[in-house]
Amino acid sequence: MKITGTFLDEISHDIPHQNWGRDEWDKDFSYMKQIGIDTVILIRSGYRRFITYPSKFLMERHGCYHPPVDLVDMFLGLSEKYGMNFYFGLYDSGKYWDTGDLTEEIDSNRYVIDEVWNQYGHSPAFKGWYLCMEISRRTKGSIEAFRTLGEQCKSISNGLPTLISPWIDGKKAVLAASSALTREDAISLAEHEKEWSEILDGIKDAVDAVAFQDGHIDYHELEDFFRVNKAMADKYGLKCWTNAETFDRDMPIKFLPIKFEKLRLKLEAARKAGYDKAITFEFSHFMSPQSAYLQAGHLFNRYKEYIQSF
Amino acid sequence: MKITGTFLDEISHDIPHQNWGRDEWDKDFSYMKQIGIDTVILIRSGYRRFITYPSKFLMERHGCYHPPVDLVDMFLGLSEKYGMNFYFGLYDSGKYWDTGDLTEEIDSNRYVIDEVWNQYGHSPAFKGWYLCMEISRRTKGSIEAFRTLGEQCKSISNGLPTLISPWIDGKKAVLAASSALTREDAISLAEHEKEWSEILDGIKDAVDAVAFQDGHIDYHELEDFFRVNKAMADKYGLKCWTNAETFDRDMPIKFLPIKFEKLRLKLEAARKAGYDKAITFEFSHFMSPQSAYLQAGHLFNRYKEYIQSF
Amino acid sequence: MKITGTFLDEISHDIPHQNWGRDEWDKDFSYMKQIGIDTVILIRSGYRRFITYPSKFLMERHGCYHPPVDLVDMFLGLSEKYGMNFYFGLYDSGKYWDTGDLTEEIDSNRYVIDEVWNQYGHSPAFKGWYLCMEISRRTKGSIEAFRTLGEQCKSISNGLPTLISPWIDGKKAVLAASSALTREDAISLAEHEKEWSEILDGIKDAVDAVAFQDGHIDYHELEDFFRVNKAMADKYGLKCWTNAETFDRDMPIKFLPIKFEKLRLKLEAARKAGYDKAITFEFSHFMSPQSAYLQAGHLFNRYKEYIQSF
Repeated sequence: MKITGTFLDEISHDIPHQNWGRDEWDKDFSYMKQIGIDTVILIRSGYRRFITYPSKFLMERHGCYHPPVDLVDMFLGLSEKYGMNFYFGLYDSGKYWDTGDLTEEIDSNRYVIDEVWNQYGHSPAFKGWYLCMEISRRTKGSIEAFRTLGEQCKSISNGLPTLISPWIDGKKAVLAASSALTREDAISLAEHEKEWSEILDGIKDAVDAVAFQDGHIDYHELEDFFRVNKAMADKYGLKCWTNAETFDRDMPIKFLPIKFEKLRLKLEAARKAGYDKAITFEFSHFMSPQSAYLQAGHLFNRYKEYIQSF
Repeated sequence: MKITGTFLDEISHDIPHQNWGRDEWDKDFSYMKQIGIDTVILIRSGYRRFITYPSKFLMERHGCYHPPVDLVDMFLGLSEKYGMNFYFGLYDSGKYWDTGDLTEEIDSNRYVIDEVWNQYGHSPAFKGWYLCMEISRRTKGSIEAFRTLGEQCKSISNGLPTLISPWIDGKKAVLAASSALTREDAISLAEHEKEWSEILDGIKDAVDAVAFQDGHIDYHELEDFFRVNKAMADKYGLKCWTNAETFDRDMPIKFLPIKFEKLRLKLEAARKAGYDKAITFEFSHFMSPQSAYLQAGHLFNRYKEYIQSF
Repeated sequence: MKITGTFLDEISHDIPHQNWGRDEWDKDFSYMKQIGIDTVILIRSGYRRFITYPSKFLMERHGCYHPPVDLVDMFLGLSEKYGMNFYFGLYDSGKYWDTGDLTEEIDSNRYVIDEVWNQYGHSPAFKGWYLCMEISRRTKGSIEAFRTLGEQCKSISNGLPTLISPWIDGKKAVLAASSALTREDAISLAEHEKEWSEILDGIKDAVDAVAFQDGHIDYHELEDFFRVNKAMADKYGLKCWTNAETFDRDMPIKFLPIKFEKLRLKLEAARKAGYDKAITFEFSHFMSPQSAYLQAGHLFNRYKEYIQSF
């Protein structure tokens, strides 16, 4: 199971910024290419007041700051140069995190989708959409949000594929700003299957692929959850990807690169479950030879040895 | 708004030490010089039992450890070599943090000021004093402490300037050792103005410059708070500096270098408010090309591009 | 007081993994050698489901994962190459941390000791055992556990020495996953002496050396606690080592390399107390020139200057 996609986390919730310029990004795309990555996914085009491209709409509606660099333009250019498929991640107003209400996400992204497709849709690297709302279980309104936005994305872009990457409500599903690493009331496999069947059934025509984050459950639970995820995705006609997290959720420093052995366990579980594709959150901080976290470069080397051994 | 000063944080509350020797410090001063820094401010000459110079007084009174290196001597030597203005930060006994009472800070620093001026006052680089008590709002006794110590510093040194760097009691004013990033009961602009007007009025003859830390409020609040700070400083005859923090308060890792876009927002706000000078906390961990945090070197590069674009 | 031993923390509770391969480990042993390290101690051979060698017993009994590399084999090989004494750390099932009950640790390690001695006991570098249960005070069952396992280790291996490394229940004894740095109810010197006398008396025939972790008390408390530890060890006929922690417990980032001045204070206190040997937790993250934490390389340099000044 090779990792063939990565998120680009330049508007981050919780991972400190590396302050790279265009040169470093160009080099990073070449490192990605080197290990077979063909897909890059902008994790979100904006979060609260910080945005990746100079969106007139978002600056007016949410008082967003004019960004120093047009990252969407830069990433599309690099995707063209390196032959990558670029997925555009929608805007995250922060309202959902504060209130649990997805209304603002739907309302704002209706405009963002139009604006972005007009400005950047001509790029041959623009190959898909990422519905960036990170939900779990039966979040109130999530089906409607995914369906509404997914349909709009597809209809404006001649059916380009749409992706979601939710989290499993497992024992490691704790807030990044909490000092805890685990919690008691994790979801059971049966509940997970019941609730996600309902969601996938509701969004199946608007969403093409689901990539569950793989870091919220314990390693020995991977096989069962992955089997269920694949069966559900098959039943409702979605592609089943894995979002193989390359940061370590088990350590008090939040967050540094994962131990290779753990990544291997997760990729092997996805392979056994017959998953369609593996992407990661994310290459540039946690797997790149030029990451500020030097453990990442060693992970890159260990991973290369691993895929060369196939 | 160029950054022309930096703190030197060798006796740290919360930033891990880099274990540099004289060679690394010499190189760091040259990096500072390269981007136009002309002022270095020793953040404190001691904290509880750790001290920067072999102070007989502090070793006797507070049981401080004999330091392996005389950092005051070293930093003064490097300041002479690189043409920097050195500000000496007073001693922090820790008592104020434990009890809220500033009496010990006043009592100990009366002796420290004498001792230091006798030992190091001859250096042509010794150009000012930093009253290191980090207070906010109307801390009990803060006016008396700043006035007493400021007057003593100035009178012993033929009126060398004195600096304070308080924090705004904003939404990000949480303890470094807390896992939280924000809190609910932030100060209002009106309260801030009322309380700080009282303080500045009380210390105006003993303190020459106030450099509010810029990291405790949200980016969209900068303009209002900075305008009020400048108006207050003007009214009471103090120089208005900004302490542009170069570490990121929004992330669960406490603390790594800030995203350049955030630093730019803060510097732009200070420029618009007509601030007199920008200093930073601090160059060597968060902006230096040789920092252990590699993000810092990239911040250095982004910042250089920024000031070259003026 | 030179550091002549280090733990090898490849199955970690709380320190993120560096993802080194054999080349990096070979280089690290050469760095260790360079400063006089002659002893390496595998901190544990497994923790819950992660293990260092392909133990049939542990994979069956605890569902442990087959490790990608046989680290025991690799570390023994490197120990032979560099002339190091290798101590084997027992298995930590995690049950003790969850329940306070040491029964599972005793039961599992009876098998582990046999298995390991059969597989690796022939190596000339296999020079001792580390009883890895990290206890403090009068943990229920700790005397029995140390005695039972220590006796088994010694009897199977013709009396190879056994080591423990407990913590002092001091003011910094807080969980790594807690955001706090200190606590109120620290142990008194008298309680420490009383409770540890009882433990050392109970284990004296099964344990050869005790290396108290030196990071849980304040620096000015070191002298008193070290004096008591040495007197107790002498009384009951154990070697008294110090486990000089090279990470900093005083900072909100958990954990980065320690400030050299602090390490020096701890080593000086051990020297004054007449300790027999200093080991560290641990070289590869916190003192190595190739550590992902660049502060570690500078600590290596400062430490080298220090021991060259003797």
